[in-house]
Amino acid sequence: MQTEPTIVDTPLTIAGKTFNSRLILGTGKYRNTEEMQAAIEASGCEMITVALRRIDFDDPKSRSILEDIDWSRYHILPNTAGCATAEEAIRVARLARSMGLSDWIKLEVIPDPKYLLPDPVGTLEAARVLVDEGFVVLPYINADPVLAKRLEEIGTATVMPLGSPIGSGQGLPDFRQIQIIIEQANVPVIVDAGIGAPSDAALAMELGADACLINTAIAQAKNPAGMARAMRLGIEAGRLAYLSGRIPKKPYASASSPLEGVVR
Amino acid sequence: MQTEPTIVDTPLTIAGKTFNSRLILGTGKYRNTEEMQAAIEASGCEMITVALRRIDFDDPKSRSILEDIDWSRYHILPNTAGCATAEEAIRVARLARSMGLSDWIKLEVIPDPKYLLPDPVGTLEAARVLVDEGFVVLPYINADPVLAKRLEEIGTATVMPLGSPIGSGQGLPDFRQIQIIIEQANVPVIVDAGIGAPSDAALAMELGADACLINTAIAQAKNPAGMARAMRLGIEAGRLAYLSGRIPKKPYASASSPLEGVVR
Amino acid sequence: MQTEPTIVDTPLTIAGKTFNSRLILGTGKYRNTEEMQAAIEASGCEMITVALRRIDFDDPKSRSILEDIDWSRYHILPNTAGCATAEEAIRVARLARSMGLSDWIKLEVIPDPKYLLPDPVGTLEAARVLVDEGFVVLPYINADPVLAKRLEEIGTATVMPLGSPIGSGQGLPDFRQIQIIIEQANVPVIVDAGIGAPSDAALAMELGADACLINTAIAQAKNPAGMARAMRLGIEAGRLAYLSGRIPKKPYASASSPLEGVVR
Amino acid sequence: MQTEPTIVDTPLTIAGKTFNSRLILGTGKYRNTEEMQAAIEASGCEMITVALRRIDFDDPKSRSILEDIDWSRYHILPNTAGCATAEEAIRVARLARSMGLSDWIKLEVIPDPKYLLPDPVGTLEAARVLVDEGFVVLPYINADPVLAKRLEEIGTATVMPLGSPIGSGQGLPDFRQIQIIIEQANVPVIVDAGIGAPSDAALAMELGADACLINTAIAQAKNPAGMARAMRLGIEAGRLAYLSGRIPKKPYASASSPLEGVVR
Repeated sequence: MQTEPTIVDTPLTIAGKTFNSRLILGTGKYRNTEEMQAAIEASGCEMITVALRRIDFDDPKSRSILEDIDWSRYHILPNTAGCATAEEAIRVARLARSMGLSDWIKLEVIPDPKYLLPDPVGTLEAARVLVDEGFVVLPYINADPVLAKRLEEIGTATVMPLGSPIGSGQGLPDFRQIQIIIEQANVPVIVDAGIGAPSDAALAMELGADACLINTAIAQAKNPAGMARAMRLGIEAGRLAYLSGRIPKKPYASASSPLEGVVR
Repeated sequence: MQTEPTIVDTPLTIAGKTFNSRLILGTGKYRNTEEMQAAIEASGCEMITVALRRIDFDDPKSRSILEDIDWSRYHILPNTAGCATAEEAIRVARLARSMGLSDWIKLEVIPDPKYLLPDPVGTLEAARVLVDEGFVVLPYINADPVLAKRLEEIGTATVMPLGSPIGSGQGLPDFRQIQIIIEQANVPVIVDAGIGAPSDAALAMELGADACLINTAIAQAKNPAGMARAMRLGIEAGRLAYLSGRIPKKPYASASSPLEGVVR
Repeated sequence: MQTEPTIVDTPLTIAGKTFNSRLILGTGKYRNTEEMQAAIEASGCEMITVALRRIDFDDPKSRSILEDIDWSRYHILPNTAGCATAEEAIRVARLARSMGLSDWIKLEVIPDPKYLLPDPVGTLEAARVLVDEGFVVLPYINADPVLAKRLEEIGTATVMPLGSPIGSGQGLPDFRQIQIIIEQANVPVIVDAGIGAPSDAALAMELGADACLINTAIAQAKNPAGMARAMRLGIEAGRLAYLSGRIPKKPYASASSPLEGVVR
Repeated sequence: MQTEPTIVDTPLTIAGKTFNSRLILGTGKYRNTEEMQAAIEASGCEMITVALRRIDFDDPKSRSILEDIDWSRYHILPNTAGCATAEEAIRVARLARSMGLSDWIKLEVIPDPKYLLPDPVGTLEAARVLVDEGFVVLPYINADPVLAKRLEEIGTATVMPLGSPIGSGQGLPDFRQIQIIIEQANVPVIVDAGIGAPSDAALAMELGADACLINTAIAQAKNPAGMARAMRLGIEAGRLAYLSGRIPKKPYASASSPLEGVVR
């Protein structure tokens, strides 16, 4: 008897690099290093993002986050969290590359500290400069299909729309614009903020997203390693459901047990 | 390094019988027997429900659904799908037990063929009679917390509220009353209809449901075995997230990368 | 030029009595009598519900709520709020009629003090008795289409499904079962709890509800009279929209300015 | 007895011009001129938007939309519907002004014909140019709080976020980002697309929006004049509710009839 579904997935490919895991982890807000390491391990992730502004490039001793992770096992994705303008983000990205860290950059241009929503114009400006300089740019954006298309056109490696504000755990309360982004994209679409539980991650993948980036929902869970594994399963579930072809939503019921039987 | 989260779950226990899987499968609407068998296998389920009205107890040759499944591996849960009144449901349950099938019964009293919504009064009446006769009764109900409490009080083994109408695939569009049922219940709560994708199943489990019963969303998926495995993963994800303690939903953002760093 | 739409509505008719207003007001939780009276006036309502348990029938001096309202202008609808069982509700209704108050009764059987959700079985039992005794029965129920149909069949004058729990102000977070109730009903459908703002009331009316009963959202608003008028407008807006035939919801956009023009 | 709430609203003021009506109408998609005129009349609106691309400035005979409306009674708001780029929008706005039509412009830069979503970058570019040239600019945008803030900073007279795609009638399925826009704005916020029924318009106003622009939901209703009046009432209801201070949403119920009574 057949014991496994015959569905074969292709790996996620970003800028020519392939990943078997479709879950990307952040490194902020863990209560301690042990919890972070256990969560990373349990998540099965292959790419981890690190805020460049938390690294003191002048003082090697302070580079704790870089030393806490075994970078031979994980692809590092530096990010520009904390940069309020295109200029800041560009400068930080260049510095990271010049230090030999990476030429990949998760681009965040976030002027507003309360809702942490990204600046569409500043993001596009910074992306243009960084793409021109040879960076592999993964921009964090509001769920704006026209902006996503423009970023793709200038050569970003992905687009990373938010599900809801960073750290809010609200999931994807309205996913229609994310659906449009997915429908129109020729680069991977990574849902990047707001995921609070595996059901949110599964939903993003069922819609056809290529990956999810998750930080707060794992780091701040009561049991980060447990939640990391739960997110891994949720993403696998959603991806497999996407490939398996879900039933349409119907306004009416539809009997699961058609009654051709004879017992009356 | 710790490679697995240390969370240990207790098995699902219904009427003294334990189950490691929290996914229960239906057997209706598969396109063919092979797809059904592959889906059951891929789902990892341990309990399967069968509509009694599809079985001709007078003609053993017609009992195909019973012959298509290896009942040494799965716990059978007969159901009264197609019964519009308490009387019909009681009669069918008795017949099944007298034939030696089971004294467990998934109780469905559904007068309306369009939306397939259950009758609260007929269900309570039939449950009372069947519990008194020693049946293990698992009643299918609308998400009505007071009805759920009344059924528990008369001795049903579980309550099985719907997420949305049978076969609709709408998921749990409003789960507040299911949350109340879970909060108040002393018996297992099984979400029983409307689940369309793993994100729905994960959500039910994250809310604290004890199990999910899924039929149409697997049977009518393009690849039923793939979807069965996806649902299995979704349920595991949701359960593990429930045990791991999710973050609260917040109206505001909360930075994942607090900026104690020094790069300016 | 035509200055008014040519839509003519029929009045709401309950048990042979007609009402031009489709807004029914409760009398609980006002901060003082003046605010209540101003709100009633601003609402344009013609029917007001009063909790019988707040009236001391043995002490005429205590019947303040009855004295605070000019009952020559408003139809009184006594209710059984605070009754946890069918027996209590029946007894209170009989007492009110014997005192000459009314033979109309808004039937509430609510065993649970936390969520204030109605008991479907107790409500049906009490309704059966009271209808048999000649009462005009308006039962408060969860949004359960099968229960609504059963109540109509035994002769209740309306059905009154909740939008969300009493006083919660959550509106109608999932209105599908209310839509089904409306589709199947031959008696007026009155949405009776959870309305928090005019948008909720308008939505109920757009779905085809015949009226709304509102209490907390008006009584506890900062300005009850202002909110009462706002609710009145919301109900008129929703009713008129229902009669005017709204556009369907579409997943895609549809240009409002088709471009047959010539400027290029 | 007080018969009217004592709430006094201030009029809507845009670029120094005041409006008593908070409903702005579009002129596209009406089935005929009579229906349009009746709807405008019934709406009580004081400002009407007209697509410039539907006007042939070279052929006065073709300027039907301008002749169909009594412009002594309504403020004209020309719009750049059908312009896919900033350049086009700028050119059309200049042409309209040079023809003496108006120096107000509802700015739409919409590259995508399927979802009709606005281009954030093109809109900001065009707004900058037009503000510099002295236009009163009302830009149509996705519900992006950072973009809204940037537009306000360069001097637009309003911001006009969408509720959902143009003509979709989906309302405001997720209004959190609109709430943020309202919270942060120092110019009027006008919800500009997706409103399908008065409940949507009322909701926008309850959130604190200053006005709504509606076209398809009125023009394509079965009875446009009826729906226009319904929208007018919905907007008045929502505005009055906003000023009256709605109750908060609560997860639990809260009895409307506290039981200090004595009947047992």
